[in-house]
Amino acid sequence: MNYIDDINFNAAGLVAVICQDFKTDKVLMMAWMNKQALDLSIQKNKAVFYSRSRQKLWHKGEESGFFLNIKDIRLDCDGDVILLKVEQIGGISCHTGRLSCFYRRLKNNNQWESFLNVLKDPAIIYKKNKNAK
Amino acid sequence: MNYIDDINFNAAGLVAVICQDFKTDKVLMMAWMNKQALDLSIQKNKAVFYSRSRQKLWHKGEESGFFLNIKDIRLDCDGDVILLKVEQIGGISCHTGRLSCFYRRLKNNNQWESFLNVLKDPAIIYKKNKNAK
Repeated sequence: MNYIDDINFNAAGLVAVICQDFKTDKVLMMAWMNKQALDLSIQKNKAVFYSRSRQKLWHKGEESGFFLNIKDIRLDCDGDVILLKVEQIGGISCHTGRLSCFYRRLKNNNQWESFLNVLKDPAIIYKKNKNAK
Repeated sequence: MNYIDDINFNAAGLVAVICQDFKTDKVLMMAWMNKQALDLSIQKNKAVFYSRSRQKLWHKGEESGFFLNIKDIRLDCDGDVILLKVEQIGGISCHTGRLSCFYRRLKNNNQWESFLNVLKDPAIIYKKNKNAK
């Protein structure tokens, strides 16, 4: 029996993947993987996702240089969520140029407030393609 | 404009919700909310999810006593994942009786290894209904 048999991919063949910095424990982002992306991630020891919007593999860091090196792979009780402990390269995980994708916080007035600075202009990060993540 | 307008619920009307201990930063679980669950969570200051398997609201802790008190609500760049910073009551988040749902780790032999102990027998936690989470 292979490890893949314990993963419950959804109807679209995807599993949710939470990425957490292995040193700081900050939650950096959540994305999705299909079987191929998971296989490649394990082979390369770097996060490879499946982009639902672009409907293709998304080699995280390929354009930006902000790779996520895999330190540990964990699976939840239902087998439908993976938790990756990662080493974040370059200090930026979000395509907006921030440390983490979770940069908005709900305030008492029921509005979202940004609490993380943009560390680098996305236009500079993604020279080839501004829409790439 | 309300905070809810920035949330991109999926085709099933759900948004993914990662729960992270606000003190230890451990990732405890991931579940889903619909608008009603999110509204109730904010009102009660306790996590209320939508159970996809049971197709109804899931008042986390209602049976087990293991409530998740909300300390902070964060939203990702795409608006389709919420990160809850929570105070975990009772030291158990997983329906298997463990601290976290992410209790399996991929070993070099490509097998999952459990690395978190069962702290309490689920049969005792869920006296009324063994299948409840």
